[in-house]
Amino acid sequence: MKLVKVIGSVTSTIKDSSLNGFKILLVQCVDVDLSGKNDYFVAVDTVGVGEGELGLIATGSTAKRTDYTKGKNIDATIVARVDKINLEQ
Amino acid sequence: MKLVKVIGSVTSTIKDSSLNGFKILLVQCVDVDLSGKNDYFVAVDTVGVGEGELGLIATGSTAKRTDYTKGKNIDATIVARVDKINLEQ
Amino acid sequence: MKLVKVIGSVTSTIKDSSLNGFKILLVQCVDVDLSGKNDYFVAVDTVGVGEGELGLIATGSTAKRTDYTKGKNIDATIVARVDKINLEQ
Amino acid sequence: MKLVKVIGSVTSTIKDSSLNGFKILLVQCVDVDLSGKNDYFVAVDTVGVGEGELGLIATGSTAKRTDYTKGKNIDATIVARVDKINLEQ
Amino acid sequence: MKLVKVIGSVTSTIKDSSLNGFKILLVQCVDVDLSGKNDYFVAVDTVGVGEGELGLIATGSTAKRTDYTKGKNIDATIVARVDKINLEQ
Repeated sequence: MKLVKVIGSVTSTIKDSSLNGFKILLVQCVDVDLSGKNDYFVAVDTVGVGEGELGLIATGSTAKRTDYTKGKNIDATIVARVDKINLEQ
Repeated sequence: MKLVKVIGSVTSTIKDSSLNGFKILLVQCVDVDLSGKNDYFVAVDTVGVGEGELGLIATGSTAKRTDYTKGKNIDATIVARVDKINLEQ
Repeated sequence: MKLVKVIGSVTSTIKDSSLNGFKILLVQCVDVDLSGKNDYFVAVDTVGVGEGELGLIATGSTAKRTDYTKGKNIDATIVARVDKINLEQ
Repeated sequence: MKLVKVIGSVTSTIKDSSLNGFKILLVQCVDVDLSGKNDYFVAVDTVGVGEGELGLIATGSTAKRTDYTKGKNIDATIVARVDKINLEQ
Repeated sequence: MKLVKVIGSVTSTIKDSSLNGFKILLVQCVDVDLSGKNDYFVAVDTVGVGEGELGLIATGSTAKRTDYTKGKNIDATIVARVDKINLEQ
């Protein structure tokens, strides 16, 4: 999984039917110091992560096998809301 | 998914049969400020995104499981036309 | 597989059910001289690698087929604890 | 798919049986202005693209499902010979 | 596939059972002029490539479907020993 921050959302009327009913979020990969990296994904939200919050995304074939995306044609899914990052001292 | 802008198309006569009948578009990954990144994909269009418009592409095994690419041998598919990007203030 | 160093862990209460019961570690890809690269993954641990130790991660569909992650929806798994790296002289 | 230029070939005697009978080409990813990028793949040719010509490669699991690579263990396949790139004015 | 050079090996006692019995090599991606890139993989050897020699690696789901890795949980496999690279003049 990749550590990401939710920075916005995407509105789309014409889309593949697999995306219907999902909130489509724009997420930015972040460094361990939480600074943003120049790497973005558009991911569906399955756990209720709010804008500005941290989450984990699964990509590739894994993204379409979560509790809420089973059988859906999705290649990036937010699979966890991050409460805390514990860095080694 | 990745946020992309359609910048052109590709003409190909000799190609794998899976690509027959699809419009093959050249798309550029864009930043959240919509500036172009130096990262390009060649993707089939399934939603009717015009040149200069924004879309979302799915890549990898997901690309061949959309409404229109089921069973097709395609690794990059435009799965949504983007109406609006909503960035957190 | 990729050579990584465990640098911390992630605490998450709200997450996909596939992640339940796993220790979720933050790992950093390392160079062959063991210096850290600016590339991080969040991976589940299946072999008991401690913080600061070296391991190997499998990513993509492979990550969900290890002894302990079979059928789990996980895209990055630590599959080995590295004892020693033997570089050609 | 990725836009590539054929720049050479690879000779291999000892190889996985899936690669037997295929021409193994060295391809370079190119920019939309056709300048070469520092990104190379080794791909099997299924459409007859000559050296110096442009093609499209499919990668990942898609690469082993083309007309000629079905069931073969190949992760990069040339799936189209590019006649023309049409860029938006 | 990617063109790589074998630069060492990895010793691991505690590992996923899929890795048992394989030689685990450290490989470096190389440019077409054979200079090393800052990109490394840890791959199992199925063709007997020695240290300092060139090979091709398959990654992702392809890596676990070679003659010797069928059903094994491996995401990077050396599938060919390279005899010669033929660059276009």
